[in-house]
Amino acid sequence: MSMRTQYCGLTTEEFLGQTVSLCGWVHRRRDHGGVIFIDLRDREGLVQVVCDPDRADVFAAAESVRNEYCLRITGVVRTRPEGTTNSNLKSGKIEVLAHQVEVLNASVTPPFQLDDDNLSETTRLTHRVLDLRRPQMQRNLRLRYQVAMEVRKFLDSNGFIDIETPMLTKSTPEGARDYLVPSRVNAGEFFALPQSPQLFKQLLMVANFDRYYQITKCFRDEDLRADRQPEFTQIDCETSFMGEQEIRDMFEGMIRLVFKNVLDIDLPDPFPVMEFAEAMGLYGSDKPDMRVKLKFTELTDVMKDVEFKVFSGAANMANGRVVGLLVPGGAAMPRSEIDAYTQFVGIYGAKGLAYIKVNELAKGRDGLQSPIVKNIHDAALTEILARTGAKDGDLIFFGADKAKVVNDAIGALRVKIGHSEFGKSNGLFEDTWKPLWVIDFPMFEYDDENDRWTATHHPFTSPKDGHEDYMATDPGKCIAKAYDMVLNGWELGGGSVRIHRADVQAKVFDALKIDADEQRLKFGFLLDALQYGAPPHGGLAFGLDRIVTMMTGAESIRDVIAFPKTQRAQCLLTHAPSVVDEKQLRELHIRLRATEPAIKG
Amino acid sequence: MSMRTQYCGLTTEEFLGQTVSLCGWVHRRRDHGGVIFIDLRDREGLVQVVCDPDRADVFAAAESVRNEYCLRITGVVRTRPEGTTNSNLKSGKIEVLAHQVEVLNASVTPPFQLDDDNLSETTRLTHRVLDLRRPQMQRNLRLRYQVAMEVRKFLDSNGFIDIETPMLTKSTPEGARDYLVPSRVNAGEFFALPQSPQLFKQLLMVANFDRYYQITKCFRDEDLRADRQPEFTQIDCETSFMGEQEIRDMFEGMIRLVFKNVLDIDLPDPFPVMEFAEAMGLYGSDKPDMRVKLKFTELTDVMKDVEFKVFSGAANMANGRVVGLLVPGGAAMPRSEIDAYTQFVGIYGAKGLAYIKVNELAKGRDGLQSPIVKNIHDAALTEILARTGAKDGDLIFFGADKAKVVNDAIGALRVKIGHSEFGKSNGLFEDTWKPLWVIDFPMFEYDDENDRWTATHHPFTSPKDGHEDYMATDPGKCIAKAYDMVLNGWELGGGSVRIHRADVQAKVFDALKIDADEQRLKFGFLLDALQYGAPPHGGLAFGLDRIVTMMTGAESIRDVIAFPKTQRAQCLLTHAPSVVDEKQLRELHIRLRATEPAIKG
Repeated sequence: MSMRTQYCGLTTEEFLGQTVSLCGWVHRRRDHGGVIFIDLRDREGLVQVVCDPDRADVFAAAESVRNEYCLRITGVVRTRPEGTTNSNLKSGKIEVLAHQVEVLNASVTPPFQLDDDNLSETTRLTHRVLDLRRPQMQRNLRLRYQVAMEVRKFLDSNGFIDIETPMLTKSTPEGARDYLVPSRVNAGEFFALPQSPQLFKQLLMVANFDRYYQITKCFRDEDLRADRQPEFTQIDCETSFMGEQEIRDMFEGMIRLVFKNVLDIDLPDPFPVMEFAEAMGLYGSDKPDMRVKLKFTELTDVMKDVEFKVFSGAANMANGRVVGLLVPGGAAMPRSEIDAYTQFVGIYGAKGLAYIKVNELAKGRDGLQSPIVKNIHDAALTEILARTGAKDGDLIFFGADKAKVVNDAIGALRVKIGHSEFGKSNGLFEDTWKPLWVIDFPMFEYDDENDRWTATHHPFTSPKDGHEDYMATDPGKCIAKAYDMVLNGWELGGGSVRIHRADVQAKVFDALKIDADEQRLKFGFLLDALQYGAPPHGGLAFGLDRIVTMMTGAESIRDVIAFPKTQRAQCLLTHAPSVVDEKQLRELHIRLRATEPAIKG
Repeated sequence: MSMRTQYCGLTTEEFLGQTVSLCGWVHRRRDHGGVIFIDLRDREGLVQVVCDPDRADVFAAAESVRNEYCLRITGVVRTRPEGTTNSNLKSGKIEVLAHQVEVLNASVTPPFQLDDDNLSETTRLTHRVLDLRRPQMQRNLRLRYQVAMEVRKFLDSNGFIDIETPMLTKSTPEGARDYLVPSRVNAGEFFALPQSPQLFKQLLMVANFDRYYQITKCFRDEDLRADRQPEFTQIDCETSFMGEQEIRDMFEGMIRLVFKNVLDIDLPDPFPVMEFAEAMGLYGSDKPDMRVKLKFTELTDVMKDVEFKVFSGAANMANGRVVGLLVPGGAAMPRSEIDAYTQFVGIYGAKGLAYIKVNELAKGRDGLQSPIVKNIHDAALTEILARTGAKDGDLIFFGADKAKVVNDAIGALRVKIGHSEFGKSNGLFEDTWKPLWVIDFPMFEYDDENDRWTATHHPFTSPKDGHEDYMATDPGKCIAKAYDMVLNGWELGGGSVRIHRADVQAKVFDALKIDADEQRLKFGFLLDALQYGAPPHGGLAFGLDRIVTMMTGAESIRDVIAFPKTQRAQCLLTHAPSVVDEKQLRELHIRLRATEPAIKG
């Protein structure tokens, strides 16, 4: 016999007059006019249970229960008295008159109320099991499951096959730091947990699986920021015999379907496409938040000979850049707000925030309010106003520094203003979903610190057709077949067409100054595989945690992960990591280093 | 534009007269009457491509290609000439007359022919990418995917939700050895990779997710046998508010559906159910292969006073057991076969293999041929023949030793004879699928070595109703709500109803002599969770690798895993594990132990 006939939260008027058995938790108990009402909760929601004093045993049991007791209740479904229906509940038109109340398990008093919205993260993660009972967490994890299942259905219907790749794999100290796993059987050797299944999925393409996917854990031992976890989940996809456009179309379709089926949201069809160079030029970012209607105006060429040294200095610097950011209606911004933004851009390394308030263009210089305008000659000033298209009442902010500082600082300022009260009330922000493909990334970035070229994406990315020779002559000019899907300023996923020919792969390694011995040691198995008629292939990977965070509107990816780690990479629930037995270390052929006691981390 | 219009292997007569583009590998190339025929292969199979000398460029390209070259071919589909159709191929009625042959990638000569069936495992794992191109491996991994997808669909339709649990978790040195991961941020501390998500799934039940599943990697650092891998994949399931019978029904339904939808095999409905005690009694195993029609006959009570010391000694031993194994028709077995079986049971610790050949019952002792029968008195002999039901021409093998040795040795002998030529030709083996539930496992096993009780299943398993008190008074008598699903002698999966009450959990820990401090240290978070109205819950876990191995008929689980490890836990393809940089070890606060250079492992 079943413990229950259906879920509490799904007990509707269709069960009227029937005897039902329900299992769940006491969400709230209240005495009202000599009758005890219990809101019984399960994963589908609440139902109201009435315990009448006429039934002595039922009433006695009901009197004994407290919040979070686990109960089994048998009773008859009846309509609620007029005026007491609750339209917020699926079960809001009915109640269950209890004939039997069985305490399946008692509960001590919980350390917090489940409907308390002001809990610290430490409290929530320490008592994660109770935290997960909260409706918002229930919704988040169920939506996460829905997203993953929609993805699987889409990929299945398109011939993609889920193939598991190893978790215990080889350390390749490129990119992020590896998590290592000492080998017991092979003394002195270590496995690494995968940073991504990148090379394995390429091998699966060479092995003729044609279309692969996996929703899998990846690991990076990085210093944790708000949106990072030591382990994270990737929707990892790869296909043979498809070009860049086909790949993008395929996965754009997947994301559109997920948003439609899970949230009933229609994303644009097709997504806009923007070249990396344009994104950096107009927004200072390769993942611009397109909800914000502000753009950079390029002014580097205009500022080379102005008297204002901050501008002319940056304009004449090797990697310098000067831009304007026109803020329509910004002349009304109070001094205090401008000061706050000046502080804000400082976070990104900007040394100040020059501006011009355009009060009245007709008055010429007298119509401009600005601490810097006196040191900018007429021709430059005219060009600034013309290029930005400034009108009376607008404000222009300026960034002038190394290009990286300008892009980071003014890019962040653009977003900050867009999301501010000012931005929202001045029509600078459109509250919607704005996806975007950013394409044509550079193959290489110059690493000033180590004086060498590094791969922007990863070293297995294909150059654009005709760009192969730039790798030797002018790596900076070489464009990659790489693409990122961006939504509202977040990178949802990214990928590339891969190199399928050994000779091209060798040219990339040459450009990266990875010599033959190192190539063989680290990537020998890939180079071997490419020799056996590797097919043209490419793919991409999405960050599931991030997609679900966006879709739920959660504040942190920790809110869409059942058992996350803190920013110190600890699990407050199980107290992992922890010290282990000396015997375990001995079996693994390792010992602890003596560390200064005070230094931890 | 797409590189291909469809798969090679799916190019059938429905495309007759059409121009198609196909991508794939040269499976075979042959010249025949001045024409070049290429069997082009992709994941869906082969298609025959005809390259005619009339088209000079096509012919020249075709002449240059070798096996495993990756090609793109455009051509027209036409019927094969009469008498040349191939009914083994979906494309066997057509061929493609090539108009264009494009070499997408050349191939060096592969180290072996893809149709060579005599490759060593070392060769196959070293060149895994080519090995995976072989049709059998393609089939195995696609069937694996089908199984996983059918499981997901079934669980989804029954309200189970896939929730990811952590890979970086806490070491609890119970059961198998953990794989450890040193923490960089928390010096001197370690994560463990999960041996199973057992505790997390129980926490998810307490957290009101009601029905959970996950197809996930688990890790055990054990000495590897033929059918073990350091990482393996578990179909892990848990549900609240269901009793043992309901849980078994649910998952029996799942496995039946998988076999039906993937292999079109109807497993029996319902599966037979057998108590652990009966399984051990009749088959000496908790996972009996029910295809073998041989059973033990219990003789311990009969042998207490026989002269033959091997029997009487075992019969009077505390944990001793004497059984007979009747082999119908076995009197015809040649001496050499009996000798081989005697050697065979030695592997399991049996010191010999007594037997009686029943030549002619009517002749009494003279009709029996046996080295031992003279030392067995009449009453015992009569009882042996009566209980086994031996007939003329039969043979009875005997096992007499500690029960464990008898069960292991005669249990293995039973299977060995059943699967032998003799067994198959004498109707002792039924070649079909014989699933079985084994239930009512003992809660505890006595560990002689450490002189204490250990949990048979795991310490979170619920005792049967009414057995709670045995835990303190007579642990050996306590039966658990545990169940295994067995198929043809393999354990497909197993599980239990869990303990949901803290007081019962405490009794188990007491019986296992885990004191309060240790309980808190290792399982504090579980005990805490049980306090907050934990619901009745239970579940089970299936071994996906094993299920797929059985379903594909593969010889090893390594044949259903894309990138497996060897028995020395190494990946021959990527050469993991490997030595790592000193810098990496320093960051992780560990150093290598100096080991004797010769000792590795």
